[in-house]
Amino acid sequence: MDSLRLYDFELSGNCHKVRLLLSLLGVEYEPVVIDIRAGATQQPEFLALNPRGQVPVLVAGDEAIWDSMAILAYLARRYGGGRWLPEEPLALARVMQWLAVSENEILYGLARARAVLLLKRPFDLEDCQAMGRSALELLERQLTAQDWLAGGDAPSIADVACYSYVALAPQGGLALEPYPAVRDWLKRIQGLPGYVGMPGIEHS
Amino acid sequence: MDSLRLYDFELSGNCHKVRLLLSLLGVEYEPVVIDIRAGATQQPEFLALNPRGQVPVLVAGDEAIWDSMAILAYLARRYGGGRWLPEEPLALARVMQWLAVSENEILYGLARARAVLLLKRPFDLEDCQAMGRSALELLERQLTAQDWLAGGDAPSIADVACYSYVALAPQGGLALEPYPAVRDWLKRIQGLPGYVGMPGIEHS
Repeated sequence: MDSLRLYDFELSGNCHKVRLLLSLLGVEYEPVVIDIRAGATQQPEFLALNPRGQVPVLVAGDEAIWDSMAILAYLARRYGGGRWLPEEPLALARVMQWLAVSENEILYGLARARAVLLLKRPFDLEDCQAMGRSALELLERQLTAQDWLAGGDAPSIADVACYSYVALAPQGGLALEPYPAVRDWLKRIQGLPGYVGMPGIEHS
Repeated sequence: MDSLRLYDFELSGNCHKVRLLLSLLGVEYEPVVIDIRAGATQQPEFLALNPRGQVPVLVAGDEAIWDSMAILAYLARRYGGGRWLPEEPLALARVMQWLAVSENEILYGLARARAVLLLKRPFDLEDCQAMGRSALELLERQLTAQDWLAGGDAPSIADVACYSYVALAPQGGLALEPYPAVRDWLKRIQGLPGYVGMPGIEHS
């Protein structure tokens, strides 16, 4: 079996998603710490792995896979059987819907609001928070009706992809108190065997 | 076989992606025209289909699938065999990488720049154009090395997902002349059997 190397930054929620799935799957890997604040992702050696200049990057054997969503899909398909990413068309579509939410309302809302407050990034905080609230309302509605985002009785990579920046929402100035179904879902994920947290995620 | 209904808006690039794949796959469907400018996506009947209040929505039998990326994955898996969305982990990851680009640099760069100029949406045009240029540079680099975004000798849903807003980039004030490999790729897609365009996409 190929070795796995993860180019990783501890405070990145996108990296945390990957660390979380690796741990839930019980897959061993070698972490390579990259400090994005020091510009390491803009160096030529790193850009050769990922032309977007972002962590995470997973190197599996000789292949570099960039983008957290792509890495989650790779790991799920390679190590998780059909459990984390189903192959049946409708079940797959249900997972993809929430991967899309993780790349849109959650990333451009919740994650960016956090980046403004934590990393002084130059986004409009109110706009990001408004988009972040729309993400939380969407999740609250879905998770009132079912335990896991894509349905069924087990989590999928949709839950992993949405988890990190939702759990980190308070760092972006968005309290989770108004969203009880979301808070119950966070606890369900935190109770999964192999769960790992990260700095900034509170566990109640 | 279930009937397919597509809630569709002609000027939406996200809807065009779905119309394009349906046509490339030779799959029949019933279009339901929704005028997003008239607020039709914010009506209760529509929100019951898609709580995000966005087109496209595909209704397959009794199931409503929202989000263009999820719909592309559904159609590829249901009607396309492994051709448009492979199951092998690394090949799947290569498709997912470019789906992520379609949801990030392309949507928040190219599509938003177009939305500012065409629909008077209140985004920062310069920021959107800068992100749009980063998308075009990323694509140019990839398509200089290979014919299709995810590799191999045939297109995947990654090409379909990235196509529409790249082809529409001039409407966002971004010329395609500096990107010859991107322009060749647009022509390759336009030459596929079943290709359909949309208003605003120029065919040379």
